[in-house]
Amino acid sequence: MKGKFITFEGIDGSGKSTQLRLVEQYLAAAGHDVVSTLEPGGTPLGRQLRSVFLETKETISPRAELLLFAADRAQHVELLIKPSLAAGKIVISDRYADATVAYQGAGRGFDPDTIAQIIDIATDGLMPDLTLFFDITVETALERMNARHMSGSEANRMDGETAEFYERVRDAYLVVAAREPERVCVINAEGTIDEIFEKTVAVLSERLN
Amino acid sequence: MKGKFITFEGIDGSGKSTQLRLVEQYLAAAGHDVVSTLEPGGTPLGRQLRSVFLETKETISPRAELLLFAADRAQHVELLIKPSLAAGKIVISDRYADATVAYQGAGRGFDPDTIAQIIDIATDGLMPDLTLFFDITVETALERMNARHMSGSEANRMDGETAEFYERVRDAYLVVAAREPERVCVINAEGTIDEIFEKTVAVLSERLN
Repeated sequence: MKGKFITFEGIDGSGKSTQLRLVEQYLAAAGHDVVSTLEPGGTPLGRQLRSVFLETKETISPRAELLLFAADRAQHVELLIKPSLAAGKIVISDRYADATVAYQGAGRGFDPDTIAQIIDIATDGLMPDLTLFFDITVETALERMNARHMSGSEANRMDGETAEFYERVRDAYLVVAAREPERVCVINAEGTIDEIFEKTVAVLSERLN
Repeated sequence: MKGKFITFEGIDGSGKSTQLRLVEQYLAAAGHDVVSTLEPGGTPLGRQLRSVFLETKETISPRAELLLFAADRAQHVELLIKPSLAAGKIVISDRYADATVAYQGAGRGFDPDTIAQIIDIATDGLMPDLTLFFDITVETALERMNARHMSGSEANRMDGETAEFYERVRDAYLVVAAREPERVCVINAEGTIDEIFEKTVAVLSERLN
């Protein structure tokens, strides 16, 4: 593996997807070979699974949801991420394993052992070189999500979760960051897009040398 | 859980699906409330996943395949099997957890720990009360599969696997049966449909009292 694997994490409304697009342009402009991707839905199979997930009329059991996201990830790792890294590219992904710890573990209440096992099986042990956690308060997140709705943006599958759910998710991300400071960098994501991007570039410059 | 959960296992061509249909009629005629089901595809979500699996043009990584089958099973357990057992029904399923040990473990080469973890997550610990393993030699299996092709039957997703693959799968089933004789009953499935059904009924009468 010669490339670099960078993941973007945060609760809904954190602005991570916007920052990912800016980072993609920034790295490409600097001459890097960048692959921009996301979970779920980073591969053709993943996009088909995502459609099934969003369109099915049946209630999806939390275990099935956990395993479907894991299947999406396994395909993503084997068919896109690993080959891209092997080719020396910088892979930037909108969500990865930490999202499972936060959303399915803390959010849905699966025990940490189950979450660790499923991540290990899905990733085959591949963890990011760097994770940017875009941190905002749940209050800011809910304001931003409401503003999106007002502007007619597509509803997110997690919409409708409670503030308490997002508090658990945010706290779980902060715990991961505290446990793995070498890998996970917390970026305060309150403020304007430009302000957050400035901080993001500073982190990338420092961490990628 | 007041009902009974009976699974039908065997390599392709073992006749387990035919026996399952006969057992369904037999138990229903005896006045039992029977739910006949299968894996993969025992629920609406499972059937959608099965379609994605069969129709995708992308190569599916072995890990993604393992996790997709597990997602199908989790949904099957939560939405069909557990509620049916709670309602006192007899659930008969064409394949269940042992198929993962045999096909993904021994067949595809995943290590036993990974297989055990994924089964535990998908089933939430629910194992069958009785498993009927319909045992044939790989030679017989391949003859029967060829005969099906000659008659224009739909190709099976496992078609094209080698005899050596099926030997590993069969051996894995036999190991499970040897380890768990209380749960797994081996039925010699060489011979005619009627002969095998007679043995099957004898086992059911003995095991279900």
